Amino acid sequence: MVKRKKKVWVGFDLGGTKMMATVYDGGFKPLGSAKAKTPVNEGPKAVQARIRETIAAALKEAKVPARGVAGIGVGCPGVLDLDKGLILEAPNLAWKRVPLRALLAGWFHCRVLLANDVDAGTYGEWRFGAGRGARTLVGVFPGTGIGGGCVYEGKLLRGKTGSAMEIGHLPIREHGRLCGCGRRGCLEALAGRLAISAEVAQAAFRGEAPFLAANGGSDLKKLKSGLLAKAIKAGDAAVERIIRDAMRLMGRAIGGVVNLLAPDVVVLGGGLVEAMPRLALEEVRIGLKETAMDSFSKQVKVVEAELGDDATTLGAAALAAEGAGRN
Amino acid sequence: MVKRKKKVWVGFDLGGTKMMATVYDGGFKPLGSAKAKTPVNEGPKAVQARIRETIAAALKEAKVPARGVAGIGVGCPGVLDLDKGLILEAPNLAWKRVPLRALLAGWFHCRVLLANDVDAGTYGEWRFGAGRGARTLVGVFPGTGIGGGCVYEGKLLRGKTGSAMEIGHLPIREHGRLCGCGRRGCLEALAGRLAISAEVAQAAFRGEAPFLAANGGSDLKKLKSGLLAKAIKAGDAAVERIIRDAMRLMGRAIGGVVNLLAPDVVVLGGGLVEAMPRLALEEVRIGLKETAMDSFSKQVKVVEAELGDDATTLGAAALAAEGAGRN
Repeated sequence: MVKRKKKVWVGFDLGGTKMMATVYDGGFKPLGSAKAKTPVNEGPKAVQARIRETIAAALKEAKVPARGVAGIGVGCPGVLDLDKGLILEAPNLAWKRVPLRALLAGWFHCRVLLANDVDAGTYGEWRFGAGRGARTLVGVFPGTGIGGGCVYEGKLLRGKTGSAMEIGHLPIREHGRLCGCGRRGCLEALAGRLAISAEVAQAAFRGEAPFLAANGGSDLKKLKSGLLAKAIKAGDAAVERIIRDAMRLMGRAIGGVVNLLAPDVVVLGGGLVEAMPRLALEEVRIGLKETAMDSFSKQVKVVEAELGDDATTLGAAALAAEGAGRN
Repeated sequence: MVKRKKKVWVGFDLGGTKMMATVYDGGFKPLGSAKAKTPVNEGPKAVQARIRETIAAALKEAKVPARGVAGIGVGCPGVLDLDKGLILEAPNLAWKRVPLRALLAGWFHCRVLLANDVDAGTYGEWRFGAGRGARTLVGVFPGTGIGGGCVYEGKLLRGKTGSAMEIGHLPIREHGRLCGCGRRGCLEALAGRLAISAEVAQAAFRGEAPFLAANGGSDLKKLKSGLLAKAIKAGDAAVERIIRDAMRLMGRAIGGVVNLLAPDVVVLGGGLVEAMPRLALEEVRIGLKETAMDSFSKQVKVVEAELGDDATTLGAAALAAEGAGRN
């Protein structure tokens, strides 16, 4: 048992397929952790019960009683009301207007802070990872879509009620490909992992990516980052070219963000970058130089994220502890 | 004579063709003002001498002795080192590494703050104009190029050493028109006043803009905002279409900025907007809705700047007084 009460912080990463809770001591050393699948198909109540159980399991592993929790920070998907602590809409969870902050506060009797999941991850990298000490840190996390966050002078950039930095929805190409948001030509519709998968699937279908055709075929669900990295290693040149082009385009978009925010560090993370960091960083740096003005591009370092899956739980726990998200 | 000492603030707008100094009391009421041409052709020393004279003339008009000046804020063009108070490079002034803060402090023995001119104007609109009370204010000022600024929670967004928010250099079109920055497809190369003038000049040359052909012809120097507005009123449909398309494209780019910064207010100002505010706002609003996500576009108001030329001097004076630029 931890002796000093109210000294642990829980970071929670709430995803559409899985969730993770980690318990940290006052110095953000992990004491215990638990993971679970997100039972979206069983409805909102089942997901909420699973959240409670997963936090309880992490506390048990950490040997900390519930009353020892000083606060819980949650990295959430979807559209949030940060001030009211609501998840307004999360399509991945099939949730609408869920008062998650109040629910957690009721269960665990502690301070609870909600943050956008990518914001929490960016804050984690700023506080403990590849972005430590940056004055302006831009985080870009290409997953299925492309998420972004920004820590400016120690605080997350946010809007009046919700999150900001929707870098995946920067308009890149007029009349471009249809995006999940209903618009055309957004960055993530051109360079996100789903967009990449759709392109490599065509290459596989046409016989231009033999490794991929033999190992994943043309089903987008199977064409995940790890498999794409294997296909490149196995010599599927079309896959490499498609991904290089996408990363370069993402770099061009990030160059535009650099022209606006003049960051000193850009952190790249997420599944695709983790699977092929060298290739991704190489192309992003080239693309960024194509569009960022010299006085900005000279000042910015593009680096790989360091914390992997822990960025979100660490960032969320630190936000809860430090109130840097101020909600 | 003002009785309480050290109670006036001077705002200075340093442009490549003209300069303006205004003296404000502690409540930012103007007490006196002076304007002068910027003698760029006579060299840096002549420009510096003219700056000193113009501030002295404004103080004289305000009936305030030099020792009554608490501080001077200067809105500057070019690339600045905000912390060191240097103009690193200002092509419009033919200046390189001029320690303007030290010069002014030496002449007037007071606190001096340098800011980017568009930043100062944006701060002026946030403090006294159309953006009062905004949590996040984005200012966009299409002049010859397209300048931008952002006040976030009461402070100007800036980079580590210099200004940020180079919205004119957002990459809009791969392989697009050549920009003054040396890149292709930047917003200002497609939608700035110079780009617009080049397009309407072609229309005039081809006989598609009879009023313009008769009144300005095809010389870009003559095709300024006021004349363009007159051409539209006189029925030059090609001019109207070119400007509407440019403003809509600018709106699309601003929509991207909205997806990043989630502002509650976007202020549009500058010569082109002042000459045809209704048209500009109409098209920017349409373009913005095309690219901004619904949750952001619902929250943002697009409004016309209120302060005209006074935005920069007012903003610069207030920055000097309030230290909100923290340099």
